[in-house]
Amino acid sequence: MACCHYHALMIPGGDTAFTVDASRVTFGRGCLKEVGDRALVLGLKRVALFTDPRLAALPHFATVKASLLAAGLDVLVYDQCRVEPTDQSFREAAAFAAEAKVDGYVSLGGGSVMDTCKGANLYASHPADFLAYVNAPIGEGRAVPGPLKPHIACPTTCGTGSEVTGIAIFDLLERGVKTGIASIALRPTEALVDPDCTDSLPGEVVAASGFDVLSHALESYTARPYVRRPAPPRPSARPLSQGANPWSDLGCREALRLMGLYLERAVADASDAEAREQVMWAATLAGIAFGNAGVHAPHAMSYSVAGLVRDYRAPGYPQLAGEVPEALVPHGMSVILNAPAVFRLTCSACPEQHLEAAICLGADARRASAADAGEILAGKLLQLMKAVGIPNGLAGVGYGEADLDALAEGAYPQQRLLQNAPLEMSKPVLRELFRGALRYW
Amino acid sequence: MACCHYHALMIPGGDTAFTVDASRVTFGRGCLKEVGDRALVLGLKRVALFTDPRLAALPHFATVKASLLAAGLDVLVYDQCRVEPTDQSFREAAAFAAEAKVDGYVSLGGGSVMDTCKGANLYASHPADFLAYVNAPIGEGRAVPGPLKPHIACPTTCGTGSEVTGIAIFDLLERGVKTGIASIALRPTEALVDPDCTDSLPGEVVAASGFDVLSHALESYTARPYVRRPAPPRPSARPLSQGANPWSDLGCREALRLMGLYLERAVADASDAEAREQVMWAATLAGIAFGNAGVHAPHAMSYSVAGLVRDYRAPGYPQLAGEVPEALVPHGMSVILNAPAVFRLTCSACPEQHLEAAICLGADARRASAADAGEILAGKLLQLMKAVGIPNGLAGVGYGEADLDALAEGAYPQQRLLQNAPLEMSKPVLRELFRGALRYW
Repeated sequence: MACCHYHALMIPGGDTAFTVDASRVTFGRGCLKEVGDRALVLGLKRVALFTDPRLAALPHFATVKASLLAAGLDVLVYDQCRVEPTDQSFREAAAFAAEAKVDGYVSLGGGSVMDTCKGANLYASHPADFLAYVNAPIGEGRAVPGPLKPHIACPTTCGTGSEVTGIAIFDLLERGVKTGIASIALRPTEALVDPDCTDSLPGEVVAASGFDVLSHALESYTARPYVRRPAPPRPSARPLSQGANPWSDLGCREALRLMGLYLERAVADASDAEAREQVMWAATLAGIAFGNAGVHAPHAMSYSVAGLVRDYRAPGYPQLAGEVPEALVPHGMSVILNAPAVFRLTCSACPEQHLEAAICLGADARRASAADAGEILAGKLLQLMKAVGIPNGLAGVGYGEADLDALAEGAYPQQRLLQNAPLEMSKPVLRELFRGALRYW
Repeated sequence: MACCHYHALMIPGGDTAFTVDASRVTFGRGCLKEVGDRALVLGLKRVALFTDPRLAALPHFATVKASLLAAGLDVLVYDQCRVEPTDQSFREAAAFAAEAKVDGYVSLGGGSVMDTCKGANLYASHPADFLAYVNAPIGEGRAVPGPLKPHIACPTTCGTGSEVTGIAIFDLLERGVKTGIASIALRPTEALVDPDCTDSLPGEVVAASGFDVLSHALESYTARPYVRRPAPPRPSARPLSQGANPWSDLGCREALRLMGLYLERAVADASDAEAREQVMWAATLAGIAFGNAGVHAPHAMSYSVAGLVRDYRAPGYPQLAGEVPEALVPHGMSVILNAPAVFRLTCSACPEQHLEAAICLGADARRASAADAGEILAGKLLQLMKAVGIPNGLAGVGYGEADLDALAEGAYPQQRLLQNAPLEMSKPVLRELFRGALRYW
């Protein structure tokens, strides 16, 4: 937390500045109904409204659509966003967008919907071979050539922070991996964050998405500091995953403090309006922080955990009527299952950050020393995970010793994230981290 | 600081959401040399470079100009920005901009230069009668009809925060008052905040501009909460001075913490690079906070204090060679001289905020109660003011009992700011506040 922390860490050839961005954010109960006026002020006349089939039947969707229509806009609805989107579903959405000839976008949903909308906006605005913009080394990592159309993102879960980041995540089917596109051009123009959306979420969904938030903050706070990342070839090429910096630190600490106070309450009682609102605000802060710092190993590892799932089915996750429940480790769960193992290791790189994070979460660290930092942080996480019903490690969602190689193999290509970790993440290190994450109690 | 603070304060018809914005900010030593690449990425080809006659002769100006030229841009220099700009100097700058037919702007300087550049960009982009966009009731307060041209703002003092706000301040000569224009459209596209610029600032300049920062944070933190401001007629009309909110609170607390740690050091020793850098970062954070919350009485009152000055000359303030020193109360000084008197009064409206602010500044408040909050905060401010050589109240810059009516009369028209105070600020109240600010020790 010391402000001279970054000076002490400077390396030759390391970056000497950081660049931060955030979308315009409106936060407050009922603010979804502002969407029509806000679209109008952005100069929009014809908008694509993205959502998923389940949300399309719910009152918040009706609110957003009515607000847009009342403002005199033409509204073209795309309600086919997939939970856990794929390159295929991104392509279908982009084809819709290209044909609809809209001048702007509104998305209402969780990370899947907002990310699909970002992808559709990108490929409809700047058509290219699909892999062109996808993160290297899986894709070409080509720079987005110009601005996209305005996008107003309206999150309905207290989790992904996608409403304020330039990141879109999807499954690349042909390669069987989860990957993404990261560009400041993808960042939504505005976010409307309405805590009313969280009132009807099952506790299990709040638990998983809440741990996504918590891990955004923890990973950004413990990421490789920006001064230890090589300076970019040109200033405008500074990556979104630029590493921890004083700006992201500030949002991380506050998000951790709020999650320590409110996560258990928000999971336990859907009618605890204050707790759900504070978790939603923490999600926004953590989104702004990680969008300007980047996450690292727990997220990189989550891609294998989600991708290699065999038959785990998460209780409480909404399914469409008549649909056979799909095997699914919810994103936040797939992240947090790795986190205690990771922080036990990474604490050696920056013990003060790990200790400060634990204190922000509410851990009693009055007599702790730097050497205890990893264990104190892991212990606080495990206490919270148990309290809200997260499974006992990767074994709890069906993985065993025999899966360690495949898990490490699947996580290793996530170099954009792994290089943002405070320690080197080789395949053997990843394998040991997955082993450490198998069972916690 | 309690998160449910805002819920407890809601009033019927009050606003239920807040909207926050911030420019893209790059922070770090040496980042001025990024300006050429950043202008290029914004699509600029021909830029106006605004500065003042003194800065035009200094190395930072050469750095910025060289970076723009190296990126292949046409650069038209306007070095006639006035310290304490006027409607006349805004008009002259706008005439230059209109004739130059540029597609973007770069400003290098303090608040005066950045504000002049905002004004020139506004009137060149959307020509209108000068009073059209000026804050009501002094001007018409008309909405800016559309976006301005891109503007990269490079602050050279650790003070105004103008690089991240949509506010431009000037003296309206015909009325003899200081006023401004406040619109989100005026917010610079990007800010390049390079602490190297502060290395050569005299301690007196750091003291005055540092207290401007400190008061941005204190006023935003104690402003009328957004939930106690009437909801706007339409969402997009929510004012920049929307009142305290959870986002601005976060930046305020961190800015106060940094100023408590570093202001004295930064004033005392120009070679204390860490202290100057942290004060510059605090200025950015406080700028983002007050740009999204708004200041109140100390700033409103400062307009009279600066405007009615008779013969006070601030030591350490740079003058052009050969120029007769003008009577001038530097902006930050004209603000902070009012602050202890104001916070002694306003503490009754929100004692917890006043106490928390004092604690962030480093006051020992372990055994303090809410009733002590105003005195503790005022006491901490006075200690800092004495330590860095701020005059002893308004009497120290030449005011006396006989000036109280004129000071109150001059501050009262600043309704945009006064309505953002946590208590009603009538003329008699303002007069008493000025009386309380005459002498402190």
